[in-house]
Amino acid sequence: MEKPRLLQGFRDYLPHAMRRRRFVIEQASAIYERYGFEPLDTPALEYADLLTGKYGEDEKLIYQFEDRGGRKVALRYDLTVPLARVATTYPDLPNPFKRYQAGPVWRADSPQRGRFREFMQCDADTVGTESPLADAEMICMIADICDALGLAGQYEIRLSHRGVFSALLASLGISGEKATVTMRLIDKLAKLGQKETRAALQQTIDAKTVSQLFEILNMPGDESLLNHLTEQLASQKSGQEAVSNLAEIYALCQRCDPVIDLSIVRGLEYYTGIVYEVILKNDAAVGSIAAGGRYDSLMHDLAGTVMPAVGISLGVDRLIAALPASADDQGDIVVVAVFAGYEKEAFDLSEELRRAGINAALAFGSPKIGKQLQYADAIGARSVVLYGENEAAKGIILVRDMKTGTQTEITKEPSDELIAALQKLLH
Amino acid sequence: MEKPRLLQGFRDYLPHAMRRRRFVIEQASAIYERYGFEPLDTPALEYADLLTGKYGEDEKLIYQFEDRGGRKVALRYDLTVPLARVATTYPDLPNPFKRYQAGPVWRADSPQRGRFREFMQCDADTVGTESPLADAEMICMIADICDALGLAGQYEIRLSHRGVFSALLASLGISGEKATVTMRLIDKLAKLGQKETRAALQQTIDAKTVSQLFEILNMPGDESLLNHLTEQLASQKSGQEAVSNLAEIYALCQRCDPVIDLSIVRGLEYYTGIVYEVILKNDAAVGSIAAGGRYDSLMHDLAGTVMPAVGISLGVDRLIAALPASADDQGDIVVVAVFAGYEKEAFDLSEELRRAGINAALAFGSPKIGKQLQYADAIGARSVVLYGENEAAKGIILVRDMKTGTQTEITKEPSDELIAALQKLLH
Repeated sequence: MEKPRLLQGFRDYLPHAMRRRRFVIEQASAIYERYGFEPLDTPALEYADLLTGKYGEDEKLIYQFEDRGGRKVALRYDLTVPLARVATTYPDLPNPFKRYQAGPVWRADSPQRGRFREFMQCDADTVGTESPLADAEMICMIADICDALGLAGQYEIRLSHRGVFSALLASLGISGEKATVTMRLIDKLAKLGQKETRAALQQTIDAKTVSQLFEILNMPGDESLLNHLTEQLASQKSGQEAVSNLAEIYALCQRCDPVIDLSIVRGLEYYTGIVYEVILKNDAAVGSIAAGGRYDSLMHDLAGTVMPAVGISLGVDRLIAALPASADDQGDIVVVAVFAGYEKEAFDLSEELRRAGINAALAFGSPKIGKQLQYADAIGARSVVLYGENEAAKGIILVRDMKTGTQTEITKEPSDELIAALQKLLH
Repeated sequence: MEKPRLLQGFRDYLPHAMRRRRFVIEQASAIYERYGFEPLDTPALEYADLLTGKYGEDEKLIYQFEDRGGRKVALRYDLTVPLARVATTYPDLPNPFKRYQAGPVWRADSPQRGRFREFMQCDADTVGTESPLADAEMICMIADICDALGLAGQYEIRLSHRGVFSALLASLGISGEKATVTMRLIDKLAKLGQKETRAALQQTIDAKTVSQLFEILNMPGDESLLNHLTEQLASQKSGQEAVSNLAEIYALCQRCDPVIDLSIVRGLEYYTGIVYEVILKNDAAVGSIAAGGRYDSLMHDLAGTVMPAVGISLGVDRLIAALPASADDQGDIVVVAVFAGYEKEAFDLSEELRRAGINAALAFGSPKIGKQLQYADAIGARSVVLYGENEAAKGIILVRDMKTGTQTEITKEPSDELIAALQKLLH
């Protein structure tokens, strides 16, 4: 018989990884709820035509097939398109609709460099308002999530604005196709470096203009840049509005120490206003651990109705990798050893512990106590409770500390004293 | 433009349903952890050949397709087959391996009577031991889960045993093909009723034997039945072992008030020992809200290595339906109204509340306060905080109780007094 194999490009989350993943999603969900976002789930499968025509050349990455009923179906590629479907399907949703959703998405990408064909997203989006308060709270949420994950001080939030950047390019005489080429190249700035990006830009734009552009891109990303942009775009109405929108959002989320970085392009096809990403300061190579922005046209294109929207998506796997080693929601667990002839006593003892709120696993795998201690090690138990012939004769239980090997005797009766003594020992 | 549609046979979980689903899964996960079970997740997609040949005629319900790389893949049909793959793939798993897993499975069933093509399972399984303690703790876990879900007193746990039932049939002279036919018919007893089942049985077995069988099936499912079976199967070694196994498990989980009901057949193809199901006493028509049993051969068939296993699967959607209306993990939420000209104040106020641990949603959807109150209603908020020109002049915030319409003034400064007064008002 051939050994069953995991599908290429996919992965299992074994208990340790699973606990870290759950920690990230639970912390993020709690913060999203703190801001009044509500949970949503949508199916893994959608009609294929909902997804096609939305992702440009990445469309080839969609898992599509025909089901037995002849329906063309596809595994969801992200959580945004299903959100658009939901937002147009149910007339009684709150307005604005603030929802979060955590779940896997599927992309038939080449499985390399830690890239998987199934990965978790954990998004929050606000649909139905253009208010800059909605944009600003996205940024506050992501800061709160990073803090909750133990990353305070280690991350940086970078803001850009599609409208500001377009207006800036226009003010430098870069428009139409040239503007698109410029944005594409600036999008790769972090990867290519300034020298190479400037050289590439000069194939489309004159050297002087490129220098002017980089002068602005290299300015410190604070108030002074906003002031400079206000002057530079004084003659453009849409540019002025965009800068004022960026300035308002920037001011609202000052406590998150955002940095304005106009070189952030991302999602050229769909972002229309603010764009943001969060990176790890000492490990920018990891890429962004969260990103998002305002996309006022995407929902319209998808759903045919005007639906301004702003959202954020967490890089769940990158966040898991960035977590402190201690970030694991595993509670303490006690293993109850099972001595031959004392099975029922072990079973009842474990029930007694659980009733007192202690996580307790019975070690019934092997009659050998040595194997049972191995089991306790394997599941990361801190203590093992032993109760066999010797202990029964003495009316005690023996508690073995798995780290030190120390064994402590606790009188078995009455139950409340046993529990109190055990809890004292565990804490 | 055509309106995007939900795929036929699938469903969205909108916030209310999603909260109930999450409540069920979180409660179940906490209980599973209490017993030392560890979390696991596996991909939605597997190689198709892992799944085929496992489900008999239900195999046609598997979603299978060829991916772009020419691999034959399938959406998982249950969580048991992926568990078997995991159990044989990683040599360093604890032994026994006690894991739980919650996630969707996919079956291309005809979408009728509330049956969906994607539904949640929440399973716990112990792989690698034949110990009856492992069986008994499954039963205790499911009782604890039902209790945690607020169903105490409303459910009944029914136990059967494949070995006992086979031996019983053999003792009545029913064996081979006749035994299989009998089991299939008894499996439908709850649906067909006794009269019809007996009539159908008499086409294969003589009337006297059918009567003898029903005499035993109709006995009260307690100690007395176990005593009767011990006598009836005295001459069969395997029958004796099976009864003693059933009696041991029955005794261990006495606190769960199990009822022995030999008419429970379920999963004829894979259960080998104890079999159990949990039903709602006053709504048996709902079907079982949880079920499981011991399956010592399935893992061997799947993985080629001996792996005794016992498990339980929750009927997540049936449990959601059975939940008390109040069972919803939505915390209280406060909506902060946004008055024109007081946007920043509303933003800062909502941040102040969140820092104090209060869930607070900004109502930035519409400048009209009436619409904002509608929003508060739509998300189930209990109170709305209002702060506009009048309130600013008086140095207060106004807290509106959404149920009674009562409005209470709270002095805005200092912050700690505002928070204390608000928390008092909320609780």
